[in-house]
Amino acid sequence: MNITLKQAQAVIEKALAKSKEIDTKMNITVVDTGANQVAFARMDGAWLGSADISLKKAKTACFFGMPTGEIGKLSQPGQPLFNIEHSNGGLISFPGGLPIKDGSGQVIGAVGVSGSSVENDHAVAKAGTEAI
Amino acid sequence: MNITLKQAQAVIEKALAKSKEIDTKMNITVVDTGANQVAFARMDGAWLGSADISLKKAKTACFFGMPTGEIGKLSQPGQPLFNIEHSNGGLISFPGGLPIKDGSGQVIGAVGVSGSSVENDHAVAKAGTEAI
Amino acid sequence: MNITLKQAQAVIEKALAKSKEIDTKMNITVVDTGANQVAFARMDGAWLGSADISLKKAKTACFFGMPTGEIGKLSQPGQPLFNIEHSNGGLISFPGGLPIKDGSGQVIGAVGVSGSSVENDHAVAKAGTEAI
Amino acid sequence: MNITLKQAQAVIEKALAKSKEIDTKMNITVVDTGANQVAFARMDGAWLGSADISLKKAKTACFFGMPTGEIGKLSQPGQPLFNIEHSNGGLISFPGGLPIKDGSGQVIGAVGVSGSSVENDHAVAKAGTEAI
Repeated sequence: MNITLKQAQAVIEKALAKSKEIDTKMNITVVDTGANQVAFARMDGAWLGSADISLKKAKTACFFGMPTGEIGKLSQPGQPLFNIEHSNGGLISFPGGLPIKDGSGQVIGAVGVSGSSVENDHAVAKAGTEAI
Repeated sequence: MNITLKQAQAVIEKALAKSKEIDTKMNITVVDTGANQVAFARMDGAWLGSADISLKKAKTACFFGMPTGEIGKLSQPGQPLFNIEHSNGGLISFPGGLPIKDGSGQVIGAVGVSGSSVENDHAVAKAGTEAI
Repeated sequence: MNITLKQAQAVIEKALAKSKEIDTKMNITVVDTGANQVAFARMDGAWLGSADISLKKAKTACFFGMPTGEIGKLSQPGQPLFNIEHSNGGLISFPGGLPIKDGSGQVIGAVGVSGSSVENDHAVAKAGTEAI
Repeated sequence: MNITLKQAQAVIEKALAKSKEIDTKMNITVVDTGANQVAFARMDGAWLGSADISLKKAKTACFFGMPTGEIGKLSQPGQPLFNIEHSNGGLISFPGGLPIKDGSGQVIGAVGVSGSSVENDHAVAKAGTEAI
C-alpha cells in the first residue's frame, strides 16, 4: 500500500499546524514507498536550503524504514555506518524524517521536515505522521 | 513579490479540480521567483515520470518568464535556441508550464503540470494560474 | 503489486535465452513500479555503454507505463514531447523498454534491454515480459 | 580476467542462500574489474536505500582491491584517508564489500551486500565470494 495524495496532504496540514503552533517556518515533504515525492509545502520565509533537506530526510526515512536520527547515531565517526550519507545521492541522517505507517503498522511512505532545530523538525514530522 | 504558500496551495487546488473535471491524473508543481519549489502534488496513479517534468516545466516558465511552449518553438532544430534544454540541469520546453502573475501583471512564480497530453497539461496549468 | 525478485529473475532468464537464440549480447534491467532496480544482468562481451541504457529504458517504460519506442515517436523535432529525454536524470526513448504486467493487466514493473539493434533489443525485452 | 555473468550469477545465488539462512533481506551487486555492474538482485522487502549502498560497496572494493571495511579504518577523522568517500561519485567504506578472486588469487571483480548489520552484510558477501 502506498500513501494517497489525500493522506499526504493531511500529513502536510497537520505538520503545518504544528509548525505554526511552535512558531517555526518549515519545509515539509511526503514521499511514497518508492521514495518518490507525493506532496510538498514550503512555508513563507522558511530557509531555502531546508527544502532539499526535507526531501532527503523523507527519502532517508523511506529508504531504511526508520527515523532519520537513528541512522545518524550509526553514521558517526567510529560507528558502523560512518559516512553512509554518501549513498543514494545524499542522505540526511539527523532528526526530522519519519516513516508513515497505516493502522496495521505497515510503512506507506515517509515525511521529512526541515527549517528549525532538529528537535522542532522532529516534533513537526511526528505531528504529521499522526494524521494517518 | 514572491508567491505565498497560501497562494501556491490555491493554484494546486484549482489545478487538481480542473484535472478531475477533464479526467486526468496530474503532477503539479508551483515554484517562486527564485525557481524554487513552494508546493507540489502528485495525484494517485499519475505517471511517476511526470513529477520531474512538472517541476522542470515550472522552473523553465520561471527562468524565462514565459510559457514553456514558447521556448519549445525556439529550441527546434535550426531555430535560435536549439537544444537550450541542456541548460539549468534540464529544461522542459513543451506546453504545461506557465508564469503566475499577480493582479498588477508582475510575475510572482510559475506552475508546471504534467501527466496527460500537452493540451491537457496546458489547460490544467492555466486553470491553476487563475487562482491568483 | 510490485514485481518480486523471483519474477524479475524469470524475466531476466527468458531475455537471456532469447538473446542467445538470436546471437546477441545484451544488458537487461528489471525495475519495480517505483522505477527502482530489482535485477540486472550483463552478458559477457556486451557493450559497456548499454548497461546504463538498459536501466534508463526500464525506468522510462515504468515512468510512463508504455513501451519506450512510443515515447520516442512523440519526442522527435516538431512533435509534442520534443526533448522530454532531459527529464528524470535522462530518459531513453527508443525501443527496448517495456512495462511488465501481471495476469490482470496491472503494471508491476518494467524491463529494459540494450546491446544490439533496437529491433533486437525490443524482441528480447518482449521475450522477457512473457515470463510473467 | 574479468568475472563472467555465469560466475556473477553464482555469487548472487550463494549470497541469496546465505542471506535466507541468517534470515535477512539483502541487496547484492557484482561488478567486474572495471567497477561496472554485471549482476544485481534485490530481495523482496529489502531496504530500498541499500540497493545503491550495495553497488557502492562493490565499486569501492573493486576500486582499491580490498574489503570496504579496510578503507573505513583509514577514512576516520585524523586518519590518512579522511573523507575519501567524496571521491568516485561516493564510496561506502564500511563492511559488506569484498574483492572476488579466481583460483590463482587474481582479482576478477567484487561483490557488495547491504540490508542488515555490517556483520551480516560482510558474512553474506563472504559467502558470495566462495562461489568462485
